Amino acid sequence: MLSKKEDAINFHRMLKGKIEIQSRISPERVFEDEIGEVLGLIYTPNVSFVAAEIANNKEQAYDYTSKWNNVAIVCDGSRVLSLGNIGAEGAIPVIEGKSVLFKTLAGINAFPLCISTQNKEEIVKLVKDIEPIFGAINIEDIESPKVLEIVERLQKELSIPVFHDDQHGTAVIVLAALLNSLQLIKKKISDVKIVIAGAGSAGYGIFKILDAARFKDIIVTDSRGAIYEGRDREPGNKEDLYKREIAQKTNQQRMRGSLSEIIKEADVFVGVSGRGKIITRQMIQSMNKDAIVFALSNPEPEIYPELAMAAGARVVATGRSGFANQVNNAVVFPSVLRALLDLKVKTLAENMLVAVAHAIAGIVDEAHISERYIIPEVNDPRVLPVVVNTIKESIKTHIRHDTVAR
Amino acid sequence: MLSKKEDAINFHRMLKGKIEIQSRISPERVFEDEIGEVLGLIYTPNVSFVAAEIANNKEQAYDYTSKWNNVAIVCDGSRVLSLGNIGAEGAIPVIEGKSVLFKTLAGINAFPLCISTQNKEEIVKLVKDIEPIFGAINIEDIESPKVLEIVERLQKELSIPVFHDDQHGTAVIVLAALLNSLQLIKKKISDVKIVIAGAGSAGYGIFKILDAARFKDIIVTDSRGAIYEGRDREPGNKEDLYKREIAQKTNQQRMRGSLSEIIKEADVFVGVSGRGKIITRQMIQSMNKDAIVFALSNPEPEIYPELAMAAGARVVATGRSGFANQVNNAVVFPSVLRALLDLKVKTLAENMLVAVAHAIAGIVDEAHISERYIIPEVNDPRVLPVVVNTIKESIKTHIRHDTVAR
Repeated sequence: MLSKKEDAINFHRMLKGKIEIQSRISPERVFEDEIGEVLGLIYTPNVSFVAAEIANNKEQAYDYTSKWNNVAIVCDGSRVLSLGNIGAEGAIPVIEGKSVLFKTLAGINAFPLCISTQNKEEIVKLVKDIEPIFGAINIEDIESPKVLEIVERLQKELSIPVFHDDQHGTAVIVLAALLNSLQLIKKKISDVKIVIAGAGSAGYGIFKILDAARFKDIIVTDSRGAIYEGRDREPGNKEDLYKREIAQKTNQQRMRGSLSEIIKEADVFVGVSGRGKIITRQMIQSMNKDAIVFALSNPEPEIYPELAMAAGARVVATGRSGFANQVNNAVVFPSVLRALLDLKVKTLAENMLVAVAHAIAGIVDEAHISERYIIPEVNDPRVLPVVVNTIKESIKTHIRHDTVAR
Repeated sequence: MLSKKEDAINFHRMLKGKIEIQSRISPERVFEDEIGEVLGLIYTPNVSFVAAEIANNKEQAYDYTSKWNNVAIVCDGSRVLSLGNIGAEGAIPVIEGKSVLFKTLAGINAFPLCISTQNKEEIVKLVKDIEPIFGAINIEDIESPKVLEIVERLQKELSIPVFHDDQHGTAVIVLAALLNSLQLIKKKISDVKIVIAGAGSAGYGIFKILDAARFKDIIVTDSRGAIYEGRDREPGNKEDLYKREIAQKTNQQRMRGSLSEIIKEADVFVGVSGRGKIITRQMIQSMNKDAIVFALSNPEPEIYPELAMAAGARVVATGRSGFANQVNNAVVFPSVLRALLDLKVKTLAENMLVAVAHAIAGIVDEAHISERYIIPEVNDPRVLPVVVNTIKESIKTHIRHDTVAR
């Protein structure tokens, strides 16, 4: 039997690219007329009429070209899965996989724009330069905190929506999974203690959405243990403004200590540390009864489900396929981007993300929620319409929203 | 009856994009297994094996991803058809049309990368940044002489091939058309006087290829008339190094004067001026017997075929569909890029372009050459294999060539 590694490599060698660009006009149609009737419409000379129309009113690019449905997945390869900084070329198969999911689940043209610069200012500049041909941007697998700054800048400086899946997508699906888990064990949002391991894009995004969803007791840890207000800056590094924000808004008691100390008496553990097997049986045992354990790092989770269950956890989820409860961004990013494109929403406000998480959680009806089924499958056909409608309603009724200013 | 303008706009409104990105794995296949077997190969967790392989040896991106078949059509919208500087959005329908031809004629994934910056250094930087995901670059519809400098820089600084269709593509098809026209009227390369109207990308490219093909008597004109060595610099402009090169290598007698003066007793006129109807009946009449007139500007040719024929021209070609002898880059760019990608040729040397032109001319066999048939149609199925083979042979036997240095 082939190993998973051999399987994956053979599959990719055979395909030589998981995506391709297709003409939407059949070859027969392009050349159907000897005198070039159709060719003369889609290309010179008569395409110039369309070009001139758009030049007069750039907004019409949405009507006459693929812009309305084009997303750039921008990745500099600086933080790819658990592999770290492997560079742009190494990132391509991952980003192409994402493109397949965008197309398959939401009909979106997502181009895998793997780029060689890892410089913050240069990435911001590049994304601004490519704006004309895209309807939205998805930032992916760029290291934190650089990426958080890039996303913040782009959201301000572009006139198309900017989604950051590692931050926003992960946050939404984690909250959805958490809402249903809490319903299962009958604990309240206001009562649970949550420990998030990891203060990168995912950890920051999860903290933000949990805060917006009115969770009260959140502690975030990084490789140096609990983050608390007043903690010394990491030696040699400049201050991480996003960790400072975390420090200000979480851990009200300013608890200090390592993850193994902080996790004691927690109700919920969310692992987005990027490091496998950092949670032991003893740590799970030190949590409160009916512990919820989301060990989301890939490919190696913080603790494997079997071990976590054996140690007494009630609900266990991972980020991987092949186990129950895959907490998978792919439930989120295709449908949210579909909504952003179709509704021309520029800014996805935090409470809009909370609404989407509630809507996704609601797809799993009460009668069906169980320890092994807390979130919809990636290919659940109910997700797309529910998310698009939720964002549509959110725009109509909401206080904080922003339509595209063009 | 609808006008061509209405036709073109309706067609584009109906399609909303002439291209799209497709998954090469069917939706059924992606989700064929409950436990996510295929999904786990193309995406997390097992895609990480492929990512790690490529990170170890970047060259493998050609084997495991779409890179081998991806071309970026980079356009800043600064010189779109005859419309001039209409900006990136206006360029999209034109560049999408080009992408359709790339796919239809050569199976290439050509992404229409219409960008908002028009700054030379920024364009060079951007193209360098996006190199990882592309197998080749096609530069398009950027104003001259800026673009000539950009192309020269990129050819030196990138490790993938850089093709400039306005320059190289036009040059090849013009030379092919000219070779067969000369055969028809039985004049020799060494004997004919050629006037090229236009000293932008196309004019420069045509001068270069004709020079490489050993034409002796070439004069290039721009809006100020004949270019000759020692001509004053255009007031207020900095020196155009490409026009200086033209001045040095053409017009040995340093003829001065307007196009109407220079065209007298010419055997061949090649119009790439970007300006319609600048050639009069009298000007054609002032040319030598059996005049060859290529009025290639789009959408309005320098002179319409009917008028040129009535004035005594023997062979007339335009850049448009709808007339005999469309001198169309689309015969060139798909097949040449196919060869560059497949053979991993980095630099297309001038004599390689000459060889391709001879090969394309050779597709029209002697028995079939006529005043109305001097070059193959855009969709002639013989073009692709002939061009790929020619470039393959050219690499094997040639003095000046460069394979990709990686």
